[in-house]
Amino acid sequence: MQEVGEFGFIDSILPKLGKRRDVLVGPGHDCAVVRSPGRAWLVTVDSLVEGVHFKRHWLSPRQLGRKSFLINASDIAAMGGQPRFCLVNFGVPPTYRSADLVRVQAGIVSAADELGAAVVGGNLSQATQLSITITLLGEAPSRLCTRAGAQPGDQIFLTGTIGAAALAVHQWLRGGTPSGAAVRRFREPEPRVRAGKALVESRLISSMIDVSDGLVQDLGHVCKASGVGAHVELERIPIAPVCRKLPNSATRLALSGGEDYELLCTVPAHNLTRLKHLQAALGCPIHRIGEITHGRGVKVVDATGKRLRFDHGGFDHFASRR
Amino acid sequence: MQEVGEFGFIDSILPKLGKRRDVLVGPGHDCAVVRSPGRAWLVTVDSLVEGVHFKRHWLSPRQLGRKSFLINASDIAAMGGQPRFCLVNFGVPPTYRSADLVRVQAGIVSAADELGAAVVGGNLSQATQLSITITLLGEAPSRLCTRAGAQPGDQIFLTGTIGAAALAVHQWLRGGTPSGAAVRRFREPEPRVRAGKALVESRLISSMIDVSDGLVQDLGHVCKASGVGAHVELERIPIAPVCRKLPNSATRLALSGGEDYELLCTVPAHNLTRLKHLQAALGCPIHRIGEITHGRGVKVVDATGKRLRFDHGGFDHFASRR
Repeated sequence: MQEVGEFGFIDSILPKLGKRRDVLVGPGHDCAVVRSPGRAWLVTVDSLVEGVHFKRHWLSPRQLGRKSFLINASDIAAMGGQPRFCLVNFGVPPTYRSADLVRVQAGIVSAADELGAAVVGGNLSQATQLSITITLLGEAPSRLCTRAGAQPGDQIFLTGTIGAAALAVHQWLRGGTPSGAAVRRFREPEPRVRAGKALVESRLISSMIDVSDGLVQDLGHVCKASGVGAHVELERIPIAPVCRKLPNSATRLALSGGEDYELLCTVPAHNLTRLKHLQAALGCPIHRIGEITHGRGVKVVDATGKRLRFDHGGFDHFASRR
Repeated sequence: MQEVGEFGFIDSILPKLGKRRDVLVGPGHDCAVVRSPGRAWLVTVDSLVEGVHFKRHWLSPRQLGRKSFLINASDIAAMGGQPRFCLVNFGVPPTYRSADLVRVQAGIVSAADELGAAVVGGNLSQATQLSITITLLGEAPSRLCTRAGAQPGDQIFLTGTIGAAALAVHQWLRGGTPSGAAVRRFREPEPRVRAGKALVESRLISSMIDVSDGLVQDLGHVCKASGVGAHVELERIPIAPVCRKLPNSATRLALSGGEDYELLCTVPAHNLTRLKHLQAALGCPIHRIGEITHGRGVKVVDATGKRLRFDHGGFDHFASRR
């Protein structure tokens, strides 16, 4: 009997779609892409569940609302889209204060508003755990870019820095007090909407994903969807400054910790010069971290050429985080 | 301090939308209506939570999946739309068997397929309670019909019969064994997609809603949104045969029990003859049960003219149903 907790399970139970001309991209990517005559839409759903994704004292209700929206916007960014409409489903314990729920909702609305989206509907159910599930619809760009499309020889790029949010979680779970930089990063992801649009519209990239479950795991999704492998150079990974002061374990955390919400994309070698010229339009730094290879799986090597091993590639919802 | 459980709370915390030309109908109706240049979409979200909306032995996993989809399709039907795309969010306890989750998903897909819709994406999170949240996108009809629009003098109509699903729940909760007819009705709602389309496209109706929380409560939503009252004749209400054999309390249950997923609509008096001619196109019976009035609130009167009192208008997620 397979366990429900087995990683990646949602993809394995979602159906293989038959030939529907109105579904351009089905399950297995950051967003599905649907269209009705003419216009294509990106659609995505993601959830934050108390005790699984956060503890109540890690975020204020408003911050929780903002983050619920922002992590969905990151999926839209990963396919080069523009967030437009969202629906919110709340699971709420009877003891949760209504004033706090209003704050959660205000946080969702403020984040949506900043990115040009509107909250158009919702549902509220009683539940034992607080949870916020947001479905976000985004305008699709004029061309589609998914996780599938990376080719051997393509260079792997990553926006921003990684590791800080995972560090905050790691320290909270061990009873520590994370630094302000780490906490801010956990609380307020910065979905790379502008960079996502620019990268997709530029036609310079062959695949893209957002890094939500950890670099190694999410790059693994690209490799699997594209039928390729990846070679990553540890020294090139833009580890967040707050993690760099810490021992080696922080590096490992940065690679597998998750919640970074940066963009990971692959660029054919002949596009590298043009990518340089695009950098100013991205609104964030972008770094080359490795190369797509023949074969399969993600290999991370240090400066001496030694391969790092990961027992567990990234954030697993069924790992104990309570 | 307001309690989270206060009825109708979701509407009160969802934002009043400013002037966005791309949002035709915002929160407070069965679906929101959004559009991108040209085409309008209905979007809705609804959730089934174990211990709140069902107990595990009331439905097989496949039936649970089907019902999760069908209750959303009912919201699309209530606005005359055609279900098209859905996203599924699962909250799953670690002990839940993956084979059962596959059956839930198969149930969703089978129901979606029967109604012409595709499951295009999803998300799975660990949770203490089993829950299935579905966001459904539907094609909007060429005109919009919401809960707002009922006028004094309009006649109130209801499709099908009501009360059987609530009877099953009532009997299960008291340790009884509901009859097959009641159980089937609870397990497999029949969203009135065909009737909803025909009613909206006919332009004969002034408002519509689906009866999911109980007739009195849902008619109350129409009254509130339209700024009117309603006068309902008890004798005219199409109570399900399985409830008719039971004492008076079953009638009360039929009016306030919920989970009927029938359509309730209002029809200006001058359209009544044309509505008769439409009946064959609906695919289900439709009955006149009362009239919209000046004033506010829903009044149900028996054959002697005596008014029935309801402590509690319908299904409340925060009432104890465990």
